[in-house]
Amino acid sequence: MDPRILWKLSYGVYAVCGQKDGKNFGCIANSAMQVTAEPASIAVSINHDNFTHGCLTATGRFALCILPESYPPLAIGKLGFYSGRDTDKFAGLEYETADGLPVLKGACGYLICQVRQTLDAGTHTIFLAEVVDGALQSDAPPMTYAYYHDVIKGKSPKNAPTYRGQEQKKPQEKKGGYRCSVCGYVYEGETAFENLPEDYVCPICKVPKSRFEKIS
Amino acid sequence: MDPRILWKLSYGVYAVCGQKDGKNFGCIANSAMQVTAEPASIAVSINHDNFTHGCLTATGRFALCILPESYPPLAIGKLGFYSGRDTDKFAGLEYETADGLPVLKGACGYLICQVRQTLDAGTHTIFLAEVVDGALQSDAPPMTYAYYHDVIKGKSPKNAPTYRGQEQKKPQEKKGGYRCSVCGYVYEGETAFENLPEDYVCPICKVPKSRFEKIS
Repeated sequence: MDPRILWKLSYGVYAVCGQKDGKNFGCIANSAMQVTAEPASIAVSINHDNFTHGCLTATGRFALCILPESYPPLAIGKLGFYSGRDTDKFAGLEYETADGLPVLKGACGYLICQVRQTLDAGTHTIFLAEVVDGALQSDAPPMTYAYYHDVIKGKSPKNAPTYRGQEQKKPQEKKGGYRCSVCGYVYEGETAFENLPEDYVCPICKVPKSRFEKIS
Repeated sequence: MDPRILWKLSYGVYAVCGQKDGKNFGCIANSAMQVTAEPASIAVSINHDNFTHGCLTATGRFALCILPESYPPLAIGKLGFYSGRDTDKFAGLEYETADGLPVLKGACGYLICQVRQTLDAGTHTIFLAEVVDGALQSDAPPMTYAYYHDVIKGKSPKNAPTYRGQEQKKPQEKKGGYRCSVCGYVYEGETAFENLPEDYVCPICKVPKSRFEKIS
């Protein structure tokens, strides 16, 4: 089967945010959808290996923050490509607290979700949650997963339901170019990659220049 | 809670198609998402009252057809706003058969899905299915739910997980205008609605002119 068929499914880009023992946790998710209208409920798929999975299983509460196209890629990189086990992902991020949960500033809005059921799906768990509250923060256009891929040139981390393990090279991934080994970002600037300053970091996930690899 | 927050979630537009006792069944869905990458699995939310729900429960197999922006609104209307209980939704639609399931011609592609688990979510069931096969049919841009709403001006039927029961009037829904009572399409042509020929039908769901109502 051509894996590109799965890439034709459409999604948004979300941050699943919670708090456990006074500490914030969270990750980026795109596999989220409304399941019922009355009462409103949503489902989100989270990898068993994610730090967020354990926290969510313990607390059963999260805020689903809906990210707009304008949301800073650096913040997406921080929430999506690091682990909460060894990083405070929220340090440096702009957020406030709603119903005891961290919600990101600059989002389209957020849904406060109470987990009602779970379904073990192998590598991931589907968390089915009732939407108990929420707020619209702005009318900015929501970021779609296609926008994240095509415009921001972001990739999916390995734990994502939509991880493109067999992703083919994009047209801009020319031989001899440079790609971030962490998030897959392809450098396209005018300055030759070799001539970039040593403190250059990936604009998506912030890893240093040394983590870039030559596209072969 | 402002219901418009839920409208900021992003989706595609899909047709869930199957066959039971030699007859085709199917409906339009937007709440579908990939749940795992290895093996690939997807979840789709279907209303208990949908004819498709019973058929799917009995057969456990479906094709998820991914509709492109160019997919004919008439076909979406037929699959989305009629019931398979009293209508052969596939009559007049262009489709072929793959693995014993109807798959729509003109789609981006389809996934052949085998239901592995279900989760009862109240009014709807989440069908969790393994993707056992699939084909890419074209590279046309997939239709997003936002495109369906904003460009095609389609609405959600009452059974949809994303039914906008409290949807506010759109700017173009001017008092004195005409709206299809079945699918919500708002007439915006240059000819005054009253002067349209008597055989005018809704471009989305094909109901006759008499089913339009004046916006008050």
